[in-house]
Order: sequence, then structure tokens, then C-alpha cells
Amino acid sequence: MRQSRLFTKTRREAPKDEVSKNAQLLIRAGFIHKEMAGVYAYLPLGLRTLEKIKAIVREEMDALGAQELIMTSLQRKEVWEKTDRWDEAKVDVWFKSKLAAGGDVGFGWSHEEPITEMMTQYLSSYRDLPVYVYQFQTKLRNELRAKSGIMRGREFVMKDMYSYTADAAEHKKIYDAAIDAYLRIYRRVGLGDRTFLTFASGGAFTEFSHEFQTLSDVGEDTVYVHRGRGIAINEEVMRDDVLSKLGVARNELEKAKAIEVGNIFDFGGAKSEQLSLFFKNEAGENVPVHLGSYGIGVTRLMGVLAEVFADDKGLVWPATVAPFRIHLISLGKDGDEVARAAEDLYEVFKNAGLEVLFDDRDLRAGEKFADADLIGIPTRVVVGRDALAKGALEVTDRATGAVELITREEILRTYHA
Amino acid sequence: MRQSRLFTKTRREAPKDEVSKNAQLLIRAGFIHKEMAGVYAYLPLGLRTLEKIKAIVREEMDALGAQELIMTSLQRKEVWEKTDRWDEAKVDVWFKSKLAAGGDVGFGWSHEEPITEMMTQYLSSYRDLPVYVYQFQTKLRNELRAKSGIMRGREFVMKDMYSYTADAAEHKKIYDAAIDAYLRIYRRVGLGDRTFLTFASGGAFTEFSHEFQTLSDVGEDTVYVHRGRGIAINEEVMRDDVLSKLGVARNELEKAKAIEVGNIFDFGGAKSEQLSLFFKNEAGENVPVHLGSYGIGVTRLMGVLAEVFADDKGLVWPATVAPFRIHLISLGKDGDEVARAAEDLYEVFKNAGLEVLFDDRDLRAGEKFADADLIGIPTRVVVGRDALAKGALEVTDRATGAVELITREEILRTYHA
Repeated sequence: MRQSRLFTKTRREAPKDEVSKNAQLLIRAGFIHKEMAGVYAYLPLGLRTLEKIKAIVREEMDALGAQELIMTSLQRKEVWEKTDRWDEAKVDVWFKSKLAAGGDVGFGWSHEEPITEMMTQYLSSYRDLPVYVYQFQTKLRNELRAKSGIMRGREFVMKDMYSYTADAAEHKKIYDAAIDAYLRIYRRVGLGDRTFLTFASGGAFTEFSHEFQTLSDVGEDTVYVHRGRGIAINEEVMRDDVLSKLGVARNELEKAKAIEVGNIFDFGGAKSEQLSLFFKNEAGENVPVHLGSYGIGVTRLMGVLAEVFADDKGLVWPATVAPFRIHLISLGKDGDEVARAAEDLYEVFKNAGLEVLFDDRDLRAGEKFADADLIGIPTRVVVGRDALAKGALEVTDRATGAVELITREEILRTYHA
Repeated sequence: MRQSRLFTKTRREAPKDEVSKNAQLLIRAGFIHKEMAGVYAYLPLGLRTLEKIKAIVREEMDALGAQELIMTSLQRKEVWEKTDRWDEAKVDVWFKSKLAAGGDVGFGWSHEEPITEMMTQYLSSYRDLPVYVYQFQTKLRNELRAKSGIMRGREFVMKDMYSYTADAAEHKKIYDAAIDAYLRIYRRVGLGDRTFLTFASGGAFTEFSHEFQTLSDVGEDTVYVHRGRGIAINEEVMRDDVLSKLGVARNELEKAKAIEVGNIFDFGGAKSEQLSLFFKNEAGENVPVHLGSYGIGVTRLMGVLAEVFADDKGLVWPATVAPFRIHLISLGKDGDEVARAAEDLYEVFKNAGLEVLFDDRDLRAGEKFADADLIGIPTRVVVGRDALAKGALEVTDRATGAVELITREEILRTYHA
């Protein structure tokens, strides 16, 4: 992609009312646009990163045997009344409206109810189980406050997976496999070493729930990390009986701020019972289907990546989720030898299947470098007069700042698609 | 994909309240689920077809130099007031709600206003132009009636592209290129021979607008087709002055029912002026940006494909948008020679990169064939005892019913990915 054609440009300033670091940087770098508090559009750079995160999540969901579908934003009152979650006294983030044809309609802030209700049309026998399905859905939540940028929005993308199994034993298999898949996802997006499976308070159905917490100073949660075991305990269940159940001692734990980047729930048969999702088991008895639900806020995860890795110059993307792999910067002027060499290299990189953002703009070197630092593509390759003379290119690692002089062949070998 | 694991199963009956042929078939074949009138979830088969249509549209938009982004569903009242389209007397399909933090909020039924308003932050000079951007967005429209299945829903996916150009001449270039791109899209999804560039009534800014109409008995529009010229005239502008302007005679035209599958608008500078989107031209004058808007209802297009190609046995997908390319049907029983041969063939096809739905279920041949006909995958390959003995496979074309006996090598050659 030629940067001269890229929509958008970087900006000096974020909107004055934007208080979160992630959104400030993402707006300045041209990844997102603020429509209103907690509501952001994803511009070409932002959409590329978002789609890369989704692709990683999708691969891991598919590897679990889960199948992708997409539910609806518009929601029926009757379905949510069955679980007593239509009432705004119970769920305070509903957006609701009226149908022109008459009656109430809600906008999906979650999808456990409609997807489980839908399953009554497809699951009736143990032969139909297990079923694992997932979606990437835009959720709408009428949050009173929205000050965390894309880490907690009023409109955001969530990957939600649901498991429908015959019993607790079958449930445990997919539940454990999903934990592994989640940990792989966090490793793949670069957060592996600071993200922990965390014990948190359970819902109506289980003693604990599990969440995944990424250590970060801007986190809203406090967790106690056991680095040796690779787990954490949410402050809300930091009690002696819990510690003893998990077999850890208080002095082995490290207190830290953290942000939740995923959560998984075991509903047992309770929600299925409320929504009349029963199946005939091998003994011929009608029993409720065992439900598990597994969420990752995909846009939130992007916000966490922006927030956690940024430095004082701008964004720093891990290679797996960067909008482009290489930022090729020409220091040439209109048609001179350097510009022609840069154009040539752009073609070579493109033909090799490398994802390249090519800064072909007529700007001073300093402006180009500042933009590159702000945008945060992992590897910067500069084509200047010096490089040409030496027959090698200046390659800078955005994260460490390390500079190397290497040949184009080495670049192609190192960064091949 | 193994059909034994596929979510969902086919169904004998569509919901009683479903009156449209496309939704009846898509529900029975397991492509979509009806959440409420005009509101459908896309199940794994349906999502695959939808994504294939999107991929074709995306390729053609990218080829125009348009860049993908994604705007928001939540909409600000102030933006729409600037063009006088917030008022429900002016736009009767709004869903609206209240923000918990105070104030009104709308749900995006269209995105011309917010995207044009956003551009005020990015476009200020002729050097910034042209800009072409597009999105695949879920639109919400509070339609009073919704009886056309996914051809006209309350929640549906649209591809909307926007062109921002310096003047009418620059606009005309992208407008004409977009017409060509649209015609390529209809050809690629299989509707080329029955889809026509159609002259319809203009908006406030132009004498005509252009739409694309696919001939179909279930269409809501009446058009007059000039097959020789490959164009049509919407009944609403079927007047002598229009005919003479287009240089066609009334007796050359063929009256037909048709359904609109795309539309494009030239807004001139009017909407930009309302939304304060001005730029400095080369002469240093502040002038409004020229706006074009280009829509394709992607889910509608899928509904049209279902509706137009279906026969009395079920759906019939063109190969380019089918959820799978090949439907491999095993007539074997648990582990017998035929079942093993089918399993083997499934592996061979998968390894060759073919998209295969493998009916490995323990059902009678008749049930499998009926399901295959209903689902509508273009090519059916049957592995039975006869085929094994002959060393050839029975290959049936879903659209024509033509049957051939051919070897697996020929199949791989013919249907390679």
C-alpha cells in the first residue's frame, strides 16, 4: 500500500474529550475515528489490525471444532424474559426501541439467550451433541460511562463461543480445550507473558468463573499472580479458603493491576432449562443441555495491545497483528535515483508477498520517521543515498530501536510471508 | 467439512409465518435462522455463502482503489440534523433509543452522513483527493413490513462505497468505473445475463440515478429492458423525453418484473455543503467535495441468488458463491469398503484444496440425495458400490441434473481450487 494513497493521515492531536491512551494514539495514528464516547469507527489501518486479531481467534476456534455463524443485533423481548434479563433493573446496559410494526425490540448486548433458544430447533438427541459455535458480533451496550477508549466501548466486537454438551464430563473437555485455545491466542498476539488464567467469582451455577487477565497499569481489576503456576486470583475471591483450594500460599502471590481480556462461564443446565433446551439422553430421559460460554472482546484486545506496547513515540505492534509487516520509507525526491530504488524495492517486496506500507510521500525524512514511529509497524526499512551506496538497507526494529544494515535478499529471507 | 459434524441439519418445514421463497428454502436447508420477521441469523452454511459474496465484492472494490473501513451502528443526532434526515417525518425507518448518559442515539440505517462528516477531519486540500472508501455494514431499518426474507430485512448487510472527488469530471471517472465493477460483480455471482444497469428517478441533485435490476418474478419493481444495449429503464422514468434522451424506442423494450440489487448516487457537492466538507482547490478556493455513494445489499443479493436459481428440489448455487464446491456422498455403511473409499476420497479432495462437504452420515441414500438437492452445492460426487467396481465416480451437476462417470483424477483436474 502506498502511504500517499492511504486513508488516513496521522494527526497531531487527539480529540480533546478523549482521555484514554489507547484511543488517543489510535486516533492520532489514523487507526480509528471517534464517533462518540465509547463508539469508534475502524479506518483502514485499524481494520487491518482488527482483522488480523480476528483471524488468529478464528483459527483457534476452528481448531476446537467450533463453527462460525452470526446471530442478530435485533433481539426479541420474549426470549430474554425467559431468563429474567429483559428488565432494566436486572440488565442496565440495554439499548431498546420500538418496532414500527408494534412491540419492543432490544439490541444485542450479549447472545447467550437467543443462541440457546435457537438451539431448541436443532438439538433434540444426544446424537446431536456436542455442538460448538461462535461468532464475531458487534455488541451494543448502553454504558453510563465510556472513558477507556476501545477497551470498554458502547459498541464493540466480541468473539463469543458457546458449547452445548450432554453432561459435565463432556463439558469439561471442551472447557479445558478452550482454556488452552485462549492461552494460545494471547501468546500469538504477543500478550502471553503477561496474561494469566484467573479465578474469579462464579455466577449462579459454579463456585468460580475463569477469566483471562492481562497485567497493565490501566487495568480496572486487581489480581494476585502466581507466576510459577501461571495463574492469578481476582481480588474478589482472594480468600483463605480459595487459596487453600488452589493450593497456593499468600506470600507466593504478586499483587497487580490487570485488565480482563477474556472470560468463560459454565452455566450447567440452568440456562438451557429456562429456555427449554432439552435433549433425550442415551437412557431416553429428557435432560437440559449443558451450556458453556466463552468470550473475548476483540476490539478490547486491540486496545490492550495498543496500550501495553506503546512507548512515548507511539504505537508498537507485535508482528502478528500489525497492519503491515514492513514500513518501507523512501528518502528520495520525485523520480531521483533513490526514489526509483525505493519504487523498485516496493515492487520486489510486494511480489514476494510481504505486507508493505510504502511511504512514497513528498515529506521530510523527520516527518516520515515520526509518522512511522506513531503508526508502529514492526520493521522499518529506509532507502536513502547512503544505503544505495553501501548496497545495504537500514532496517530498524520499532520495539527495540535496534538498527541493522542488511541486504534486500536477507530482508526477503527474514520477513517472508 | 463432515456433514455429520455440520451445524445445522436440514428441516422439513420452514416456520409457518415465513412467506418468502428465499427464506423458506434457506431456513429448510440450514443456511439461516429466523429470529423475527426480517431478522435472520446466518448459520455456518449461510455465512460461508455470504462471505464468498463479500469476497467478490471486496475484490472489485479494492480493484477500484477503494479502501475498506467500518463505521459505527450508533449514530449522533446532530450529524443527521444537518441534512434534515433525523426527523422521522423525513426518514421513517429509524430505530432510535436514549443514551444512559443522556441524549438521543440512532442506529445506522445508512452511513452517508457520518462518513461525510468524518471526512471533514481528513480532507482539506485538493491534494487529499480523490478518496474512495467502503464498508460492509449491518444496517438496521425499522420497516413496517418485512415479508421478503433476506431480500428486504430489518437487519441486513450492505456494502456501501463512497467517493470523494474534486469535481464532476473526477467524479465521473470513478462513477463509470464503479458501474463496470458492479456489472463484474453480478457476472461473477452468476446474475450477469439477467442484471441490467437501470435508469431511475434522480434525487435532489441529478436527473437520473442509476440502479442495477435483476429480472425476477418476485421483484418489486417494473423495468423496461433494452437487451441490445444491455440497459433498462425503471417504470418511474418511462417517459418519451427519457427514451429520446437515451436514444431508444419504446418498441425495442421488454417489460419485466425486477429486483434492485444495487444503486449508485451522485450527490454533487450538496451533501458535503450541508455537512461542511469543503476543500481548497488548486485555485485556492474553498469548494464542497463532490460525493458519490454506491450500495449493494449483500444479504439481499444472496436472497436473490437463492430465489432466482432455486428449483422444486431446493437451492442451486453458482459455483462462485456456493458454501462448498463439491458435495461428496458416501453410500457406505460404517467401515465397509465403500465407506473407506469415500473417506479416502475425502482426504484426497481436502488435500487438493477442494472445498468439500462430506456426507458421512448413517442415512439412506434417498435422504442424502434429498438433502444434497436442498442445500444446492453445484457438484455432487457419489461413492457407491457400482462406482467402486467401475473405477469411476458418479458426478451430478445440481443445476442441470447431468450425470457423468469420471475418475477421481479428472475430478481433481476439473474442480481444482
